Amino acid sequence: MNQISRLLSPSSVAVIGASGDARKTSGRPIAFLRKHGFQGRLYPVNPRYEEIDGLRCYVSVAELPEVPDVALILLGPERANQAVAELSARGCAAAIVLAGGYGETGADGLQRQQALDDARGQMRILGPNTIGLVNLTERITLSASGALDMDELLAGRIAVVSQSGGILGALLSRGVSAGIGFSKLISTSNEVDLDVADFVDYLADDPATAVIALYLEGLRDSEKFTRAALKARAAGKPVVVYKVGRSEAGAHAANSHTGALAGADNLYSAYFRQLGVIRAETFADLLDIPFALASGRVMHGRRVAILTSTGGAGTLIADNLGVAGFETPTPGLETAAKLRALDIGDQAVLDRNPIDLTLAGLQPELMRSAIRILLESADFDAVISVVGSSGVAQPHLMADAIRDSLAGSDKPVLAYISPHAPAAAQRINGSGGVAFSAPESCASALSAMASFAEQKGAALSPAAVSSASTSIDLQLPAGQLDEERSKRLYASFGIPVTRERVVHDGEQAALAARELGGQVVLKVLSERIAHKSEVGGVALGLDAEAIGERLERMRDEVGGHVGFVPESFLIQEMVVGGQELILGFHRDPQLGPALLLGMGGVTAELFQDTTLRLLPVSHDQAREMLRELRTFPLLDGFRGMPKGDTEAAVACIVAFSDMAMQLGDRLLEAEINPLLVRPAGRGVVALDGLTVIA
Amino acid sequence: MNQISRLLSPSSVAVIGASGDARKTSGRPIAFLRKHGFQGRLYPVNPRYEEIDGLRCYVSVAELPEVPDVALILLGPERANQAVAELSARGCAAAIVLAGGYGETGADGLQRQQALDDARGQMRILGPNTIGLVNLTERITLSASGALDMDELLAGRIAVVSQSGGILGALLSRGVSAGIGFSKLISTSNEVDLDVADFVDYLADDPATAVIALYLEGLRDSEKFTRAALKARAAGKPVVVYKVGRSEAGAHAANSHTGALAGADNLYSAYFRQLGVIRAETFADLLDIPFALASGRVMHGRRVAILTSTGGAGTLIADNLGVAGFETPTPGLETAAKLRALDIGDQAVLDRNPIDLTLAGLQPELMRSAIRILLESADFDAVISVVGSSGVAQPHLMADAIRDSLAGSDKPVLAYISPHAPAAAQRINGSGGVAFSAPESCASALSAMASFAEQKGAALSPAAVSSASTSIDLQLPAGQLDEERSKRLYASFGIPVTRERVVHDGEQAALAARELGGQVVLKVLSERIAHKSEVGGVALGLDAEAIGERLERMRDEVGGHVGFVPESFLIQEMVVGGQELILGFHRDPQLGPALLLGMGGVTAELFQDTTLRLLPVSHDQAREMLRELRTFPLLDGFRGMPKGDTEAAVACIVAFSDMAMQLGDRLLEAEINPLLVRPAGRGVVALDGLTVIA
Repeated sequence: MNQISRLLSPSSVAVIGASGDARKTSGRPIAFLRKHGFQGRLYPVNPRYEEIDGLRCYVSVAELPEVPDVALILLGPERANQAVAELSARGCAAAIVLAGGYGETGADGLQRQQALDDARGQMRILGPNTIGLVNLTERITLSASGALDMDELLAGRIAVVSQSGGILGALLSRGVSAGIGFSKLISTSNEVDLDVADFVDYLADDPATAVIALYLEGLRDSEKFTRAALKARAAGKPVVVYKVGRSEAGAHAANSHTGALAGADNLYSAYFRQLGVIRAETFADLLDIPFALASGRVMHGRRVAILTSTGGAGTLIADNLGVAGFETPTPGLETAAKLRALDIGDQAVLDRNPIDLTLAGLQPELMRSAIRILLESADFDAVISVVGSSGVAQPHLMADAIRDSLAGSDKPVLAYISPHAPAAAQRINGSGGVAFSAPESCASALSAMASFAEQKGAALSPAAVSSASTSIDLQLPAGQLDEERSKRLYASFGIPVTRERVVHDGEQAALAARELGGQVVLKVLSERIAHKSEVGGVALGLDAEAIGERLERMRDEVGGHVGFVPESFLIQEMVVGGQELILGFHRDPQLGPALLLGMGGVTAELFQDTTLRLLPVSHDQAREMLRELRTFPLLDGFRGMPKGDTEAAVACIVAFSDMAMQLGDRLLEAEINPLLVRPAGRGVVALDGLTVIA
Repeated sequence: MNQISRLLSPSSVAVIGASGDARKTSGRPIAFLRKHGFQGRLYPVNPRYEEIDGLRCYVSVAELPEVPDVALILLGPERANQAVAELSARGCAAAIVLAGGYGETGADGLQRQQALDDARGQMRILGPNTIGLVNLTERITLSASGALDMDELLAGRIAVVSQSGGILGALLSRGVSAGIGFSKLISTSNEVDLDVADFVDYLADDPATAVIALYLEGLRDSEKFTRAALKARAAGKPVVVYKVGRSEAGAHAANSHTGALAGADNLYSAYFRQLGVIRAETFADLLDIPFALASGRVMHGRRVAILTSTGGAGTLIADNLGVAGFETPTPGLETAAKLRALDIGDQAVLDRNPIDLTLAGLQPELMRSAIRILLESADFDAVISVVGSSGVAQPHLMADAIRDSLAGSDKPVLAYISPHAPAAAQRINGSGGVAFSAPESCASALSAMASFAEQKGAALSPAAVSSASTSIDLQLPAGQLDEERSKRLYASFGIPVTRERVVHDGEQAALAARELGGQVVLKVLSERIAHKSEVGGVALGLDAEAIGERLERMRDEVGGHVGFVPESFLIQEMVVGGQELILGFHRDPQLGPALLLGMGGVTAELFQDTTLRLLPVSHDQAREMLRELRTFPLLDGFRGMPKGDTEAAVACIVAFSDMAMQLGDRLLEAEINPLLVRPAGRGVVALDGLTVIA
């Protein structure tokens, strides 16, 4: 049994700094452990007590009769560090440090946290600044969360790992009230040692856990998280994450809170998507989506039957499903005939969807039959039953009908509880169904189920697995590369670039223009000038006759702007016709190297029409990225425009990704802007480039 | 007392078709009326009973000892129509018809609904297909909703009008559970007579109502609704609406449900905005936003202080506020000094926001002082207090601190309940505070409060008040007007158009080109050709020399496409330089005439960068519309582009609106595409136009 297993399933627990007053934070853990039925050996440690609640209380760690699996440390930060050193010396597997006053409070705290890390030796630490963990599978509560005041806890198949202790308590209590149980809840908080990824890795193997729900403020080690998330995926366990830091205010608060650094939020979205991790959009979704997924039922398509006895709520559900891209088709002839054969009564509306049973909702056998017919029907991929006002007084009606309908189909069956009827929700959730009281939750849960079913079918692209880079030495100078050097670098990785010549005077320019033929472009060339056009350093549509004079004029004008006389110029073939893309390299402090693809042009820029991927990017991902651009139709024959050479663009994206992987840490910045996508069959060409090498 | 007042506050109620079995739908209303304390006279009518629950039961309407204010009719549709005729004949003020089987069920039902309308005479009808109404101010429950099974109902200042009966019960029960009370709840459903607008009009005068919440499927009479909404606005009562029909599935379900026709959903959004009606985005918002508004507290800016004892939940709130565009600045020096003076303890974090009080959340006097300091601080416009796990066991802590802090400031004070702690929410909501259990609700409620405060400050544009059209006869032929006639029409309303000449042969064309000067545009001219460029009917950049030959070639090419020889052509000055807009007229079946403004160009088209307004459009509204375009920066100097003549564009939008108002019902379609907005000071010009006249 490894240390994390012993932390989560200890046979013996020492509570360091336990208080005999159960109203105090330091008195709660022992009270909770006993109240919720911990069966192992429990050792309070506190020199001020002889015994606590009938348990012998020990003076010190040294005096403990055995080495505990876990120590729950309730002391303030300085004494906690001391206790950690003592426990580590005795060979304790893991300690949970509740004290705050570490990394979250500034420089002093950070130093204290470093001291804690030094003190722990081989012992594993959960925290500091954590509320602890709760193992509901085995009824072990190693936590001071006030949410454990509840008399009844509910075991279930959802594991929660949270970087906030308060959120752990919030989910635990919200779950109980909705009849949603958990396997484990773990608050990692400051993560001086064990982090979210360690627990995802553990839970991927935990037979009691079917779905992993995460509350994240930021990742400290994204490579470890990648491996853990892929392990969970391979084990068939969905990972659902609610991540704060979508706004600057939230990112800032998260930094202050547990000291986690927030990477770019939209890059997190891309990262989660690449890993198959489902991102919850609302806080309620963090409970609702995992619960729906934990049912194990499978959403094979997007057609949903809505069964209701109250028209308004049915409409509400239909509208929310429609917004989320689901279809609510009317029942086919065969299905409608079966429904009619139930003889539900005059007022039932059976040939539409929502299927309105009116008063049949009060007759469980009719309800059960209707759900079964819809589950067996080839017309639908899921069923949502609406619980109307009858659910207030008669919570069993729908719950029992759903329970009796589940066998024989693996399609999702959700219930929408229209009135406030917690007893109905609890009963449905406790009997194999999935009940929600927000119409939006029905839509987001089905969306997550659909996307999980799709990703289960898709093989994981091997390119997406490894994010390790293999640096090679390309003999590149450090600093900013000018356009010509940048494009030579790109070309060496197979990216088509404009034909061009470096010149220093008008005569060389005229010669170059003749060699290139046709009209050419003249650009100033200097690694000291990043934005050429802003200083008058770009001229289009020149011929060999005019270029010499134009070069000298540019030399003067640019010189006037930048304060030195530029020596070199670039004479470049002028390529016209096509659609412009932007291809950029970005290194995120948390998530690592990433590629940005965007549509060129000011209008697309205003809409921030861009998409991101962590490197490396495969051909399939590159294709996906292009199609994610909302302006992709501009490359796909929109309004009679010629189709662009998207396959050449895909090859270029992959080549750019390969280049970045090979340059490894030496690459700081790279951008092709614009990359011209020419009509189909005519390829792409990088018209400009900028690179910064470390 | 008018009929609607008597319907809502009856002194006497007849229940037609009452049953003695309180478990039946027809037995519920009398049971509910008595349970919830109706003080008036109650007359059951049913020939099968002598008495019901101790009340004398009458054989027929004719036998009733007095003319009741209201009759609640529980009979099936055919007998209900009969009862309506009898009640009307006796002079009853209003009847509530619960039966379904009317307009919502197809052609037969629609006929039955017409018969009901005929039978009612002067009597007002609520329904049919309604669950009735509940007047909580006076404890009068004229409803069969199962939600009334609850023992305690809660009176409050929110009125609900719902086009669905089930939604009424849902809101009523959800309100009670959250400690949120109502003044009136009314289900209008099929609206054979009284509709949503009638009740908004009534509630604008109702002293018990501070906020009006609407659940809409579609409006039957938008002009009446406009008047009622503006009356509520003038009375200082916010109107909040949740409208289904955002998706095709929802619109379709709504049509089936109560037979309401859905207009274009985005036009509804524009319409609500023009009226100052707040649109709720989620179903929870339909309760949460009105409750926050009913507090009467005022959001003067966008700076929010977050007070928390649990870091994670504070971060969650900060992130949601940030996404909604609020600021969460750190307390200024003075405020921070006052907070420090409270001596809250080591672990408190007072110089950031969220302001983390850690364990001070358990000390009500500290909490109260902190809230007061933040409310008095000029640094903040609102305060959100987070209730952590302590709220489960000690619901009074935060509730009492909030209650004691409210006087002396009119700033909003919200509580976010992090764990499941309904007692805490109820206590806060019952003591003058506003508590939510979804972080998203905190953000949407403050957004609504901010927008209500802004709109209260803004004078209502008179142009937006009247949507009546004043038709004049412009001697226009019916049918499609060609480009030249269209532009002459637009020009007569002051819209600048291209200078142009109609010609029929090459010679006239050359003459016209010389008169216009410079390069010209040649277009085929025919009311039978709507899309000129698709049939080769547009040629740009011609001079007087070339135009004759080009005209003959166009005649042949277009003729080949359309199958007749075009006779007329347009020679037009060629105007270049500027940004293209699209200006269109649209008539919505429910909401009436509307104006669409969009950015021109394929990229903007892909993003559907358009905005809508109901007519007439004022100068301020036109300015607002331009700024609503996400691509507005293209007209405003983005990336060094010249600024466009936006004031000329505003004048053109208003002129287009005036034209549409004056043409009234004769105008079926009108579009200027493109309208060229030239650089500032150089005006706008309509380059093309298309009109259809009835």
